[in-house]
Amino acid sequence: MSELKNDRFLRALLRQPVDQTPVWMMRQAGRYLPEYRATRKQAGSFLDLCKNAELACEVTMQPLRRYPMDAAILFSDILTVPDALGLGLYFEEGEGPRFRKTVRSAADLAGLNTIVADDDLDYVMNAVRTIRRELNGQVPLIGFSGSPWTLATYMVEGGSSKDFAHVKTMAYDQPELMHQLLSLLADAVADYLSAQVRAGAQALQIFDTWGGSLSAAGYKEFSLKYMQRVISRLPAEADGRKLPVIVFTKGGGQWLQSIADCGAQAVGIDWTTDIAVARGLIGERVALQGNMDPSMLFASPQRIRTEVAAILSGFGHGSGHVFNLGHGITPGVNPDHVTAFVDAVQELSPQYHQVS
Amino acid sequence: MSELKNDRFLRALLRQPVDQTPVWMMRQAGRYLPEYRATRKQAGSFLDLCKNAELACEVTMQPLRRYPMDAAILFSDILTVPDALGLGLYFEEGEGPRFRKTVRSAADLAGLNTIVADDDLDYVMNAVRTIRRELNGQVPLIGFSGSPWTLATYMVEGGSSKDFAHVKTMAYDQPELMHQLLSLLADAVADYLSAQVRAGAQALQIFDTWGGSLSAAGYKEFSLKYMQRVISRLPAEADGRKLPVIVFTKGGGQWLQSIADCGAQAVGIDWTTDIAVARGLIGERVALQGNMDPSMLFASPQRIRTEVAAILSGFGHGSGHVFNLGHGITPGVNPDHVTAFVDAVQELSPQYHQVS
Repeated sequence: MSELKNDRFLRALLRQPVDQTPVWMMRQAGRYLPEYRATRKQAGSFLDLCKNAELACEVTMQPLRRYPMDAAILFSDILTVPDALGLGLYFEEGEGPRFRKTVRSAADLAGLNTIVADDDLDYVMNAVRTIRRELNGQVPLIGFSGSPWTLATYMVEGGSSKDFAHVKTMAYDQPELMHQLLSLLADAVADYLSAQVRAGAQALQIFDTWGGSLSAAGYKEFSLKYMQRVISRLPAEADGRKLPVIVFTKGGGQWLQSIADCGAQAVGIDWTTDIAVARGLIGERVALQGNMDPSMLFASPQRIRTEVAAILSGFGHGSGHVFNLGHGITPGVNPDHVTAFVDAVQELSPQYHQVS
Repeated sequence: MSELKNDRFLRALLRQPVDQTPVWMMRQAGRYLPEYRATRKQAGSFLDLCKNAELACEVTMQPLRRYPMDAAILFSDILTVPDALGLGLYFEEGEGPRFRKTVRSAADLAGLNTIVADDDLDYVMNAVRTIRRELNGQVPLIGFSGSPWTLATYMVEGGSSKDFAHVKTMAYDQPELMHQLLSLLADAVADYLSAQVRAGAQALQIFDTWGGSLSAAGYKEFSLKYMQRVISRLPAEADGRKLPVIVFTKGGGQWLQSIADCGAQAVGIDWTTDIAVARGLIGERVALQGNMDPSMLFASPQRIRTEVAAILSGFGHGSGHVFNLGHGITPGVNPDHVTAFVDAVQELSPQYHQVS
């Protein structure tokens, strides 16, 4: 593999000194970019795009051609693992993801496929290898997965949900079955992420999109515990460096201290958390990733710059901050506003990294 | 007015001793009850139901006939004020509320009606008076309003929203215009709630449903500040007692200490907050209301009882807790599960109020 030219992102995740705050955006390969929409059209469905290594690589690279991002992220879906387990993932146009089957009983659980990520999710590993080749050391590549709890919500509900009635009823009334499903998912996710590292991923992010729907006690029991289990099974290194893992629980701001103990090197925070408060609470133990409101990108470039300045100042001096949005970029954003965002991070952050 | 037979709810809000923890549910007059669905059908549209004092009273009383709730809450909509301001509220079947007009410019703002709640929202005051008569002192009546920020989100977006693109763009790019709208709303809400108290409301709740969509700084600037302004303009007393005000910001768990300083006597917390943590942070200053996950009502009666026990134990001994869900009850809940919920609070809470 070619040598890494920009390791700012990896260094910040390990709280090692950097020259400026690294930046990338969740969902940076996405619908706000006209070139993404064109490639997506060419691919056919969203899943066709995920399963075509060349096209998945193409959309992964697109934001890097426009913006000096410090990391690339594998283009894929968070529901590839449940799909491989046999649930039959599909997308209805204009709606969220759906599964043909659900898991609501011990029999449903027993009927899931036994999977090996290298074989059953080889299309993802092909995409990782293709992207690494294409990146040619420009920036590191982030691999990712949904968290066990987040995957379980879709598998039990059969798709997106507003109140999580089915999955929560299972968690509350059949905790043993729920824990069996979560254990199975934790093992599958650990295998999946480990395979991504073998294929070339240099950092990992676990997206716990729906952990924030749980109560404080439920979060620890059904989500955090299984992310911990995933992390404990990951390889320690990637490409001869320590492998950094980022955990991002949307809506997890009240539980930062527990999250910081889960074994991850970095904790993602959404925009409802004051980053200065977060640094005070957990910034000596882990790096922080975030946390501009994605809707700020609808505002003027000048206002975006002011917000970037406020977040940089909130985190303060020193390493341990990866600039990002507090959630994925919204489809309707003007791509020029992303330029303002990334430029502001690059222009305003070096002062926080000068050794005085 | 007839004397109040059960003042447990009012006393707990003021952290005065009670014999057991009072309980009610947000949206307790609602679709999970077959008798509500029948009355709603009889009324015609949802708005027709809100505007008919006799039928609004009927649905307010329905949950009290089934369950020994310690409070009634006015049946109405949170968007009555923007409707009176001239935006034209309507409901599409199966969708959320919509407005015929939006407020996105200084001209839109200037075009709003000047309103006086006693006249322009007399149908709400009629409902309050009718319900008070019908309650006949059984339990206190809660009046309510949406918070200025929550009302503004619907007025600027024209309805519900996923990312609040328009209202946040206004807040970020035209903060002066946003503050003008919020000031106008704070005054209208204060007048509306004061009129409800004159008509017979004995406690008030401000529903800040969308305050949690803001950043930590944005919440203080655009939501909390205006709830504070509303509260500062409310009468001190209702029926010769101190008037308690509850502020409920869904998703506000990270900001409890600021919320506790807004002038309200009680703070509502959703189910993502550990009530023991909340009591430690602000329980010496304000009462707490909450906080069972509404989805817990899908679980078995036995599991519901275990959860009630855990929350009671989390709050611990003494007054200052009003039991509630962490958000409105979900339409699909079995009404018998609500019986299990209310019974558990009544049976398990007296031990926390014994003077030893």
